[in-house]
Amino acid sequence: MNRISPGHAGSPTRDRILQALRVHGPQARVDLSAIVEMSPATVSGVTGELMRAGALREMFGRESDGAESGRSRGRPKVTIALVPQTAHVIAVKLSINEIQVALGDFTGAMARTETVPLDTRALSPADIVITLGDAIERCHRTMAPGYGPCLGIGLAVQGLVRDSDIIAWSPALSVRDVDIVQPLARRFGLPVYAANDANCIAVALRNKPEFQAIDNMAVLMLGTGVGMGLIVGGKVYDGRTGAAAEFGHTKYQMDGPFCHCGRRGCIESFVGDYALYRDARAMLDLPNTDALHPSEEQMQVLCDLAAKGDPVALGLFEQAGRALGFGLTNLIALISPSLILVSGSGVRAYEYLEPSMRRSLQDGLVETLLANTEIRPRPWDEDLTLRGITALVQANAPFQPS
Amino acid sequence: MNRISPGHAGSPTRDRILQALRVHGPQARVDLSAIVEMSPATVSGVTGELMRAGALREMFGRESDGAESGRSRGRPKVTIALVPQTAHVIAVKLSINEIQVALGDFTGAMARTETVPLDTRALSPADIVITLGDAIERCHRTMAPGYGPCLGIGLAVQGLVRDSDIIAWSPALSVRDVDIVQPLARRFGLPVYAANDANCIAVALRNKPEFQAIDNMAVLMLGTGVGMGLIVGGKVYDGRTGAAAEFGHTKYQMDGPFCHCGRRGCIESFVGDYALYRDARAMLDLPNTDALHPSEEQMQVLCDLAAKGDPVALGLFEQAGRALGFGLTNLIALISPSLILVSGSGVRAYEYLEPSMRRSLQDGLVETLLANTEIRPRPWDEDLTLRGITALVQANAPFQPS
Repeated sequence: MNRISPGHAGSPTRDRILQALRVHGPQARVDLSAIVEMSPATVSGVTGELMRAGALREMFGRESDGAESGRSRGRPKVTIALVPQTAHVIAVKLSINEIQVALGDFTGAMARTETVPLDTRALSPADIVITLGDAIERCHRTMAPGYGPCLGIGLAVQGLVRDSDIIAWSPALSVRDVDIVQPLARRFGLPVYAANDANCIAVALRNKPEFQAIDNMAVLMLGTGVGMGLIVGGKVYDGRTGAAAEFGHTKYQMDGPFCHCGRRGCIESFVGDYALYRDARAMLDLPNTDALHPSEEQMQVLCDLAAKGDPVALGLFEQAGRALGFGLTNLIALISPSLILVSGSGVRAYEYLEPSMRRSLQDGLVETLLANTEIRPRPWDEDLTLRGITALVQANAPFQPS
Repeated sequence: MNRISPGHAGSPTRDRILQALRVHGPQARVDLSAIVEMSPATVSGVTGELMRAGALREMFGRESDGAESGRSRGRPKVTIALVPQTAHVIAVKLSINEIQVALGDFTGAMARTETVPLDTRALSPADIVITLGDAIERCHRTMAPGYGPCLGIGLAVQGLVRDSDIIAWSPALSVRDVDIVQPLARRFGLPVYAANDANCIAVALRNKPEFQAIDNMAVLMLGTGVGMGLIVGGKVYDGRTGAAAEFGHTKYQMDGPFCHCGRRGCIESFVGDYALYRDARAMLDLPNTDALHPSEEQMQVLCDLAAKGDPVALGLFEQAGRALGFGLTNLIALISPSLILVSGSGVRAYEYLEPSMRRSLQDGLVETLLANTEIRPRPWDEDLTLRGITALVQANAPFQPS
């Protein structure tokens, strides 16, 4: 997660102020100065420069009130806000049988998003580079008019990204070790940045005001597979080459069920949608499916059965929760994050997973080690992947006023 | 690991130069400038200031050659070296039935060490504070004459240190939550710093020239228990409160053997000396022992049996290796360290543990995830705990020339 090409040098002061406005929204100068812990004079200097460059604007009176609705309504304050059109990022999400391409504006929000269905597992390495490149070009042509320069391109990928550069493997692809970043950087002459999708989501969540103070947190992504984004010391932690935070492939039972990774007994092989549905079909009369990727509707059938008290469905979720708790025991013993958010589409079954998950944790760890970590579900009502990769590009290819 | 009282502010430039001389030994100015990546002018300025304060001295000709024996023997170079008497640290190690007290000199080496046997598990919280305080005072009285100021006191503790402040629990003590740092800081009016012993060893190893480039590494300490020191991004990682890196209490089997922590099936309950000896005594005719802490001699008997091909001894080590490999599988999946050093007194049996440990790893993880981590044994011929706590105090209570 440390390479981007070509490199840009930002100003730490300016980057911090822009980041604070992205996280906290429009702010009065005095409040901004408190957030970034810099003197009002420094903040005024930098915001003045950015206003002259057209990247910030002042908001007055009622407009400003709306932006900070929790504040007292005395003398109207002048707040400063990012101008969304200042510069943009092209954000791409590669997942199973789908590409999403979006324009991330200067505030970090997705201005427009386009979804392209295609058979991703039929693509050759060359196809992948061309298909993504063409989608990026189309996005740039149709969405970018009216926006300032493109700061860079971000690729959020289901699977393992090596050295921020190569898609080592992905459930979306049938090919491995796809060299994607350099070819796209050459085609567009722009910085290109690739990252695992769970890491993107962790970054997007960390950038919410409520999680700004939490330096060590894990975001568990339940779905077809089981992913994790790890924030350590306030930053994405993915090891030297990108292979860390593979929670789904920590082990529950050495000789357990077959896992998509090719080994046996990984947490994912008990908790992933494909694992739950595979076992459910052996016992329940359920519709046939693409065994690798059961659909949301199919998984909802399982949840509905559990809701009705079906003992088989409840038993499957109970066992999955037990395995999940075992994995979290190891995560907490090793990393002791302050917060674990359980999210992803699989959080639909959290109420059936939670009791046995908590029992595993209680059985597994003494209170002294358990007490430092809060675990809670995070509804999967908003896909933050594109926001996260946009934030990573903005952090690594910062805006420079011309 | 982030609190020390009272606080001292150092100069980052000066601290980096002193640290480089501690790691690499005496250096010519030009080489020092390359190591710290600063201009020769900056290095000359800082070393000049430190020489005037008596903290550094120049070495000429033969004396200098000796210090850098790998170099060519052309025109004799002037090297600069730390003056060991400049300032000192009092380093204390608390372990089962023993306290060690040492004077760490300005180079970070132990000038003198004293070992005090005592029944640590009989001590009350008040006794602990008084006993350690008296040992520190005696050390200061007998060892410190001839040395400059005391920078601080460091406590290396077997067990869990909470918030760098409280001994949450330790196998050396029968009491919990011992408030140790603040009372000693008040008694001596000096910065006091407490850390887990495995973290100290990890810091001391990371400070060796050969490991300076390795930002993410784990040091596994096999012995009575199973400890770990974790270096992430070049620094000790122990979570917000100190509860991370508890590798010994990650799980192998939820309903496995009883562990000293009070839970079942932890890695330690298969791999720790007490676990191996407990199982061995059930099957072999071995001398009775303090079941909690078998001695080095007793463990050597087990190793000797394995060396002679005894199938029971070999089987126990094989199972321990299998559990160890399972734990390392989870460590690698989550943290992907570049290097894992296996050390501690238990490394005596490494050759009997290694084959099944490697098999567990191969069975557990796909090559893509396994390939980023090197695992190797580190002989336990030198206890680096006191060096490590001395380095932590030096980093947190830096020297300031008066």
